Parts: sequence; C-alpha cells; structure tokens
Amino acid sequence: MLPRAYLAGPDVFLPDPISIADKKKVLCSRYGFEGVFPLDADIDLTGLSPREAGTRISQANEALIRSAHLLIAHITPFRGPSADVGTAFEMGFARAIGLPIYAYSNERDDFTSRTVQFLGTTRRRPSGEIEDEDGMAIESFGLIDNLMIAGAVECSKGCVATTSSSRRERFTLLEAFENCLSTARQDFARS
Amino acid sequence: MLPRAYLAGPDVFLPDPISIADKKKVLCSRYGFEGVFPLDADIDLTGLSPREAGTRISQANEALIRSAHLLIAHITPFRGPSADVGTAFEMGFARAIGLPIYAYSNERDDFTSRTVQFLGTTRRRPSGEIEDEDGMAIESFGLIDNLMIAGAVECSKGCVATTSSSRRERFTLLEAFENCLSTARQDFARS
Repeated sequence: MLPRAYLAGPDVFLPDPISIADKKKVLCSRYGFEGVFPLDADIDLTGLSPREAGTRISQANEALIRSAHLLIAHITPFRGPSADVGTAFEMGFARAIGLPIYAYSNERDDFTSRTVQFLGTTRRRPSGEIEDEDGMAIESFGLIDNLMIAGAVECSKGCVATTSSSRRERFTLLEAFENCLSTARQDFARS
Repeated sequence: MLPRAYLAGPDVFLPDPISIADKKKVLCSRYGFEGVFPLDADIDLTGLSPREAGTRISQANEALIRSAHLLIAHITPFRGPSADVGTAFEMGFARAIGLPIYAYSNERDDFTSRTVQFLGTTRRRPSGEIEDEDGMAIESFGLIDNLMIAGAVECSKGCVATTSSSRRERFTLLEAFENCLSTARQDFARS
C-alpha cells in the first residue's frame, strides 16, 4: 500500500477542481504516493442546509487527514498575504497527529515582503518592528508565512518548495508541488 | 486546578500584547478558567537567527496547546476576509487533539459577504456559485469563515460569538470573547 498524501490547498475552489486533483494524483503515484484530495470523501449532502453541508464536508476532510501519512499543502497566498485559512487549519490538524508536512507556494517572496506589499502603508515601531495602520505587528522572521505554518513544516521534517508563476498559473502550476513530492520520496525511502 | 484555555488570536501582534493577555486572563479566571497566552512560554531566543526564533516560538505554542483543555480563538478578519492563519493553524491543532473550540469575531458579517466586499469584483458561474477574478469559488455556506474553521467549532461542541466594533477596537474588544467564556463555563459545568 502506498503512503497516502493528503492534498490540502485552495485547489478545491478552482473552476474544475477534479482536473487539478487528477493531475496531482498522477504525479503522486509517479513518486510512490497515493494522492488524497479533499473532494474524495464519499458524502451525501442531499437535504442538508448550506451550514450542515459545510460542517459535513469539514468532518469528511478531517477523517481523510487522519487516514493520511503525509500532507502536502498548497500555500500560495490566497486573498491576502497568507495561505488559505482552510489549508492552515489542515496543516495544524496534520501537525498535531504527527504527519510530516510539505508545503509549496507559487510565489517566492517571503511573508514579510508580501505583507508589506499587500498593506501598502506600514510604520516602524521604536523597537524597529514593522506595524500596519491598525498598529498590528508584521512578522519578520524571514519565513514563508506565519511562524506556526513555517514551524510546522520545519519541525515535522518536511520541506517548503517555492517557484514564481504568472497570475494565470498562480493556483495551477505544479512545479513546486512536484519538488515536494521528490523530497518526500527521498524522506519516505529513508524511513 | 482550573481548566486551561489557550487564547489563540492575532492579539500577539498588538502594540502591547501583554496588556490584552492580562485582561483576557482576568476574564478567564472570573469564569473559572486559567488563560494561557501564546507569549507565556518561557523560552530563550538568545543567539537564534530570526528563522530559528520563529520555529522555536511555534514549538512552544504547540506545547501550550497540548497543555490546554479548551481553545478560544480570536477570528476577527485579519489582513483579508479570513482569520489570521496562525490562529487557523492552532484551531486545527486543537481540533485534532480533541479540544473544544470557542471562537469570537468582532465583525458580524458572514464569510461570503466579507469576501465579496474584500474582492470588490466577483462573477457568477453557470452553476450559480460566486467566483473571484482568478476563477476561484467563494464559499457560500452561511458560515463565519472557511468551513474547516466553522466546522471545527461546531463539531467540537464549542460556539461562535460575534459582535460589531469600531475600527479602533476591532482587535481589542472583549465582549464576544466574554460571551465565549460564559458558554464555556456552562459547558464545562455540565461535563
């Protein structure tokens, strides 16, 4: 049985999520993994209210993560300077149950410079820290995203892969995803 | 020993995080909980690079969550239509280890309307779904944030409390936080 890789990311919001899921799964199998996509859960939403449907999907995704052996998170910034929060949640979930976490972003800039660019206006505190117009500090640890995200990848012995992309390919480019798979294959071969 | 409530949120980015931590801890003890703030970890960052310091802090926060009995997440939208990703990560972590999760937001609008407002321009798919200019769907489940966030609160038997706030008090108002504590006290009294 191949190790199961849960494919977290905003890919579920693409116009054709099944197409990207299929592409990712083909790449996974090429590197010795079984790709598990959030929409793989066999759930019946008939008759549920939108709120109930949302909750049912969240439960199904949690169960899929529990069934996985690693998580590959797509953390290209999504509607702001950070990763999609659903993806961040799933990284935290995976980290707590001890899965190695691999992450990729189709944007190379670090979190600090992305946040400064997103905000437009920033200020310096007397301490030297940068803050936004609401007085909220901007993390400056040289990391790819918030320190909980980057720390989880680091401490779980995964990796972060980045590349640059055009706006059109921002959420579909799979070069950095494949770099994660390549590293994961080596890691799993050793363990 | 009082149940320990981990206080997740972007409060750590405030100009005086210790002040808000103290206020939250006083409220926690009034409701029968011990408040645990991310900055409570006794860690020494001397001599560490920024990246190492970030990772060290993330490890300390993970350990604090593992020591807690519940998590109260501050999910007021942060630099975009969603909660802070560090907070989302911590909610996922807490959910995986079975903690009840309470969440509060100082903005009442639901996720869909906030996202539409943030984006400015949106389109309708033939299916009726709303999407952004990149073609990425906008969740429309009538929830407070991404379905993983809302689902975790719901399934862990916590609650979501919301209130409205002025921009100045957006990240410091504690009325909805106190509503979470009030519900948590009842829940813990029953269990």
